[in-house]
Amino acid sequence: MSDTPTLPAELLRSLRRDAAGLVAAIVQQHDTGEVLMLGWMDDEALRRTLHEGRVTFWSRSRQEYWRKGDTSGHVQHLRSASLDCDGDALLLQVEQVGAACHTGEHSCFHRPVGEFA
Amino acid sequence: MSDTPTLPAELLRSLRRDAAGLVAAIVQQHDTGEVLMLGWMDDEALRRTLHEGRVTFWSRSRQEYWRKGDTSGHVQHLRSASLDCDGDALLLQVEQVGAACHTGEHSCFHRPVGEFA
Repeated sequence: MSDTPTLPAELLRSLRRDAAGLVAAIVQQHDTGEVLMLGWMDDEALRRTLHEGRVTFWSRSRQEYWRKGDTSGHVQHLRSASLDCDGDALLLQVEQVGAACHTGEHSCFHRPVGEFA
Repeated sequence: MSDTPTLPAELLRSLRRDAAGLVAAIVQQHDTGEVLMLGWMDDEALRRTLHEGRVTFWSRSRQEYWRKGDTSGHVQHLRSASLDCDGDALLLQVEQVGAACHTGEHSCFHRPVGEFA
């Protein structure tokens, strides 16, 4: 166990987790600024993400860890990570391989709200 | 009551709210792509935002509606809104007046995670 990198104590103190122990993680393409998706992370998902440089989420629907791209090949390589002022959201800047969305769209935000009118 | 605009039924059906009835709302500066903040919206906050063209959140800490800029002057004028594939997150592209963060920083994501190491 002593070989497992842990998150810095200051970071652990700064995270403001919801009732399920999660923070929101916004994923943005580092060079174009396109917002690709929003996922959820518990401490362990964040630890894996920072340690491996590959983005791992906690899937709320499947209740399991989900390293982006393991099945689709659409990997997210982490370039930088920031925490917001109140500690309940992360901004991850990545190099996205292929499409971020499981539908094949490049970004998950492909449903203009105007179209619902 | 008949004068109050409501959200389209299809949009209401597409929202996947958390246990508190909220979805995450990512706010991005429309022209630079800078991610400014993440807030939370219930149906009424989204309705006000789309109707007024000014971004209104639900404050989880204060348990009240919070129209961005009413006290600070740092208004967010809505330019476009998109829903993600699974309906639990919105992407709002805005014209931000002044700083988005209450700390005076332009973006709330001003704490590089690397600095916690």
